[in-house]
Amino acid sequence: MTATLPLESQTTATRTDRIPVAVLGATGSVGQRFIQLLENHPWFRLHEVVASERSAGKTYGDAADWRLDSLLPRDASKLIVKDLGAGLESRLLFSGLDSSVAGEAEEEYANRGCAVISNSRNHRMDDDVPLLIPEINADHVGAIEVQRKRRLGYIVTNPNCSVMGLAMVLAPLERAFGVDKVQVTTMQAISGAGYAGVASYAILDNVIPFIGGGEEDKIEKEPRKILGKWDGAHHIDAQMTISAQVNRVPTIDGHLMTISVKLRDHASVEDVRAAIESFSGEPQALGLPFAPKHPLHYIDAPDRPQPRLDRDRERGMAVSVGRLRPCNVLDLRMVALVHNTIRGAAGAAILNAELLQARGLL
Amino acid sequence: MTATLPLESQTTATRTDRIPVAVLGATGSVGQRFIQLLENHPWFRLHEVVASERSAGKTYGDAADWRLDSLLPRDASKLIVKDLGAGLESRLLFSGLDSSVAGEAEEEYANRGCAVISNSRNHRMDDDVPLLIPEINADHVGAIEVQRKRRLGYIVTNPNCSVMGLAMVLAPLERAFGVDKVQVTTMQAISGAGYAGVASYAILDNVIPFIGGGEEDKIEKEPRKILGKWDGAHHIDAQMTISAQVNRVPTIDGHLMTISVKLRDHASVEDVRAAIESFSGEPQALGLPFAPKHPLHYIDAPDRPQPRLDRDRERGMAVSVGRLRPCNVLDLRMVALVHNTIRGAAGAAILNAELLQARGLL
Amino acid sequence: MTATLPLESQTTATRTDRIPVAVLGATGSVGQRFIQLLENHPWFRLHEVVASERSAGKTYGDAADWRLDSLLPRDASKLIVKDLGAGLESRLLFSGLDSSVAGEAEEEYANRGCAVISNSRNHRMDDDVPLLIPEINADHVGAIEVQRKRRLGYIVTNPNCSVMGLAMVLAPLERAFGVDKVQVTTMQAISGAGYAGVASYAILDNVIPFIGGGEEDKIEKEPRKILGKWDGAHHIDAQMTISAQVNRVPTIDGHLMTISVKLRDHASVEDVRAAIESFSGEPQALGLPFAPKHPLHYIDAPDRPQPRLDRDRERGMAVSVGRLRPCNVLDLRMVALVHNTIRGAAGAAILNAELLQARGLL
Amino acid sequence: MTATLPLESQTTATRTDRIPVAVLGATGSVGQRFIQLLENHPWFRLHEVVASERSAGKTYGDAADWRLDSLLPRDASKLIVKDLGAGLESRLLFSGLDSSVAGEAEEEYANRGCAVISNSRNHRMDDDVPLLIPEINADHVGAIEVQRKRRLGYIVTNPNCSVMGLAMVLAPLERAFGVDKVQVTTMQAISGAGYAGVASYAILDNVIPFIGGGEEDKIEKEPRKILGKWDGAHHIDAQMTISAQVNRVPTIDGHLMTISVKLRDHASVEDVRAAIESFSGEPQALGLPFAPKHPLHYIDAPDRPQPRLDRDRERGMAVSVGRLRPCNVLDLRMVALVHNTIRGAAGAAILNAELLQARGLL
Repeated sequence: MTATLPLESQTTATRTDRIPVAVLGATGSVGQRFIQLLENHPWFRLHEVVASERSAGKTYGDAADWRLDSLLPRDASKLIVKDLGAGLESRLLFSGLDSSVAGEAEEEYANRGCAVISNSRNHRMDDDVPLLIPEINADHVGAIEVQRKRRLGYIVTNPNCSVMGLAMVLAPLERAFGVDKVQVTTMQAISGAGYAGVASYAILDNVIPFIGGGEEDKIEKEPRKILGKWDGAHHIDAQMTISAQVNRVPTIDGHLMTISVKLRDHASVEDVRAAIESFSGEPQALGLPFAPKHPLHYIDAPDRPQPRLDRDRERGMAVSVGRLRPCNVLDLRMVALVHNTIRGAAGAAILNAELLQARGLL
Repeated sequence: MTATLPLESQTTATRTDRIPVAVLGATGSVGQRFIQLLENHPWFRLHEVVASERSAGKTYGDAADWRLDSLLPRDASKLIVKDLGAGLESRLLFSGLDSSVAGEAEEEYANRGCAVISNSRNHRMDDDVPLLIPEINADHVGAIEVQRKRRLGYIVTNPNCSVMGLAMVLAPLERAFGVDKVQVTTMQAISGAGYAGVASYAILDNVIPFIGGGEEDKIEKEPRKILGKWDGAHHIDAQMTISAQVNRVPTIDGHLMTISVKLRDHASVEDVRAAIESFSGEPQALGLPFAPKHPLHYIDAPDRPQPRLDRDRERGMAVSVGRLRPCNVLDLRMVALVHNTIRGAAGAAILNAELLQARGLL
Repeated sequence: MTATLPLESQTTATRTDRIPVAVLGATGSVGQRFIQLLENHPWFRLHEVVASERSAGKTYGDAADWRLDSLLPRDASKLIVKDLGAGLESRLLFSGLDSSVAGEAEEEYANRGCAVISNSRNHRMDDDVPLLIPEINADHVGAIEVQRKRRLGYIVTNPNCSVMGLAMVLAPLERAFGVDKVQVTTMQAISGAGYAGVASYAILDNVIPFIGGGEEDKIEKEPRKILGKWDGAHHIDAQMTISAQVNRVPTIDGHLMTISVKLRDHASVEDVRAAIESFSGEPQALGLPFAPKHPLHYIDAPDRPQPRLDRDRERGMAVSVGRLRPCNVLDLRMVALVHNTIRGAAGAAILNAELLQARGLL
Repeated sequence: MTATLPLESQTTATRTDRIPVAVLGATGSVGQRFIQLLENHPWFRLHEVVASERSAGKTYGDAADWRLDSLLPRDASKLIVKDLGAGLESRLLFSGLDSSVAGEAEEEYANRGCAVISNSRNHRMDDDVPLLIPEINADHVGAIEVQRKRRLGYIVTNPNCSVMGLAMVLAPLERAFGVDKVQVTTMQAISGAGYAGVASYAILDNVIPFIGGGEEDKIEKEPRKILGKWDGAHHIDAQMTISAQVNRVPTIDGHLMTISVKLRDHASVEDVRAAIESFSGEPQALGLPFAPKHPLHYIDAPDRPQPRLDRDRERGMAVSVGRLRPCNVLDLRMVALVHNTIRGAAGAAILNAELLQARGLL
């Protein structure tokens, strides 16, 4: 793919110059976000939509029960949904597949030579699959080379939606001071469970102190891989201990979390705040289309960030932080917020693909 | 008062035998709970209602904007609201006063010889004022004797609504194993702020990671007094360190909290669970009218307790606990729930008064 | 059944004297309400629980994902769930079956000789099946005699949850003045759709102006049968025209509705209010256990009834009315509220069974 | 003002060319929407912010408790808040004043020569004040000429937020077929009451069937003036009868309403739908900056419009309609939705000012 679509041609890309892409699991909640976010993308062009047998053969407009508050893009609505497993013309695939089918399907397409940019959890912890947050570990794309020894294409993943918020906050702390221990309690929005995932009877006037699918386990493990190193052959986890308690709350979008950390080196509140505010990475340096100007927004108000007021900062791609202050038990505590279906899912995958394109890996 | 209303006479009390009581701050949210909970109380009889100048002189039915989902008791509705500071016939006063006025008003009535059972924060940390949870520190009523050296009557307080849930859970752990460190994140219901306290525009589809009035400070300090000792002359704090992060969530009633604890002695999950399940205290031994049979309900389901489903256990007087499991950072973690306006406020004060009556201190 | 359990024996019934009953569809939302409401019923005793194949063979405690805010009754939790269609020992069945299976299953059990007291919509409009609200049309039980000519047992139904509120309000107006035209807009709680019926993503911060399953059609037709006559051989509809617009709103329980009516005879606001306040029927006269003292509560406050504050009046069995005033387009308008899963579903069916028992028809 | 800022110059206006404007009541909920919507307006430039004495002298950033989900514009945050009644440099004023002070203050500024574009209710029904919806009654600006006979400047108003939705839907029906009778039930968002207007304790898990300030009266009267005629000297009301029942529901933004209408001339569903879909007016013809391309969006789905999904169509300036079908009691019924704080308030006022500018009346 690289040969036919070099980066330099993209900035002035006309419609047909843009890289044709397919979305797997296109009718689901993450899939719909992909469709929404890819509209008018300067580098990528939605070319194919793939879903389960039930939807295959219908137009996307008929198959998708569109639930977002922007209108379904007209071009997308006319695409005929292809069956999962069918041959595709696109070589770049965004996967919002449910984890019950993502494992095999993503492998199959990667084996056939596609670049599969996945939001699913199935392959995140595979040793030769990057668990990528471009601001933090862009060099983990080195794993692709190893992965390609066993298949024609490759899989690249982004983390769990809550992990995205947590890892982004921990990254400047780990770099500057070392992170030893982390306590995190999440208050997660209902959209994280998909459209039908949380019954209103279960969550109205309520909080559910549990999220299935190993949510706490992911939050305790994925940041260690993300903040760890790729040594050229293997991933080496960062040496930090995380304890997570998760909750579902009646908010639409935006995962809020309280965080306490113990650092390896001493750092004052001012030191840590400076590290957070100055945090930047390769997406910012490269000016990738989906990169937020500031990956972390520190908000000074005493009662922020708040999901409804702050989740959409930088089109949902920035993580917000506030209330940084000393912790009686560990060293410091704070509050963080991530838009779970944009920065924590579809937007993350698109930024990953942009990094790959900028690096000539597509 | 003790002379005229000994405990033994109460169990067969006719209407006029019951102790006449006044509710201060009767039109507010805690005050309304007092009115609701005192209806048909076997020992106490609502005799006077006291509120601000604005309400004074009206019938309670006219003055109170009744917001509870049971009907306003007919007898209460006909009482004429008295002005705060006015002379009262009752010697037993329940105070749901706002902290802006509670400090002076409660002192004044205590100086005049009344027993003021207060839910307000103003006098909780006074050295000769019991911060009472009868299941935990019934012996702290010893402070009343000291307090009476400086005034005719006395003040007894119950803790902050979140502290009630936390201290109840920590009590059996402190007794059996010693508690060293505690991390707690609360998700607090809107009723905790009073009826007009949280605007719907602020909280719908949202979480606010802040509660004013020093909420986190109270949660970090009050349990130390409650779980500490009364040595006959002074309160001696328990030696534990608590770090609290508080949040307001869109639930009506019921404060949920995630808790991680480090114990002084080793204890397995089974040990701690056994301590929680067997926890009981003087209200249970005495069979006080408002005492829950089991102060702590351990719930086995993986996703409980939940505010809407569990807040009303034992008429809102029991605290629920679940998800007890090891913590990667401290020793153990769990989830707890307290009904903030019953066990965490008006119901707590009534149970305090019942203990005082049973001990002959009224 | 009548022979073995005559009414007079019931009032002093010991546990084993009570009529054994089965609940069909016991694990669903209406089924759970049946289980909850039947606990400690003076005349009926839960003996069998019936659900789909998936649950059959399990204990009810294991099969039911209990969602109500009272605890699952201990006796019920130990019952082994029977498969729908299995032979039953009970002759009195309460059906909360989904309409996809209720049609055939209820007929089958009625053919076998059971009294099927159904909340499902399938047989409501059958000419020889009573659509019963005991306060309004107790004499419609006459249809049972006709029905029994074609089967051993019989089916009796209660109306749709919104219809329950509407018909109860229209009944005194129809009796006293005649009802010509009705405009009704409903705002229905999520519990009306069953536990998983409304996704939180669909309804949080939202209103859905549509309810499937022919909701508007039911509201326009069922009241005509209920308020009509049973002439000994057939049902004859009341001659009124109803136009309904339905909405789903984010409330847990309680269907609120705005109603405008055109009467046949002139009536002042005072006349109509008097008719509403004096409304009473056979359940009140007989003192049936589930009968509210006053079927209709008129509330004087300018902003009532409200779902959260008024739905539980008389344990959820009373319908509340307020804001009665002239209408510019028709004659009068008002607001009404019904607890949709108690008076509008399980409680309605139990009251129907009580009427049948009192009349010696069980 | 017209002389110095003719329409043709606006399209290429540089920053300083734009008309300087003041916002009255700038810290309130409507005021904040004005600030938000005026950012980057091509014709108008925010120059002054005016609020009550309490805020005067502070920067707007300090005085306003900013509650919108976009960031407070930097330029606005630095403006010093002026005291209501102070002399202003701007001649064009947008008023989001509370009705308790709007009456006198708006008159005062109009008397001084300002064009006061008001969202407040106080002067809406004054005979020489246009109650303006530019798509419907642009010619009502003729009243300004009469008004100017008694004062230097003038007041122009937009209707109540619910009336905006209703009048927009009725306009094409009135034009094509004549409207005789209207029944409307509204389900209004909490933002309509201002930020602190609806307590969360009052509305969570609830619906309130009442809105103060004469809401129903406004809905019954304002459309008659809007859809009526300006005969050169007086407003003449349209001859239609409206009956409104209003409700507050727990949605953030977007007033939804069910409507039934009786037309004067016969019209089929198709006729009415065609009238709705082809509806357009002077803002569309003139291409005013805030004009929606289509003032009315007819949505074909059976369960739309919905507040969360449809309120932001055309940046909140379009009204959505759906479920058009015959009514059993009147002729036709339907559902409509208006964004209450954009099209129903601040956006409406800005569109009014654009019309005045385009017509050379500023």
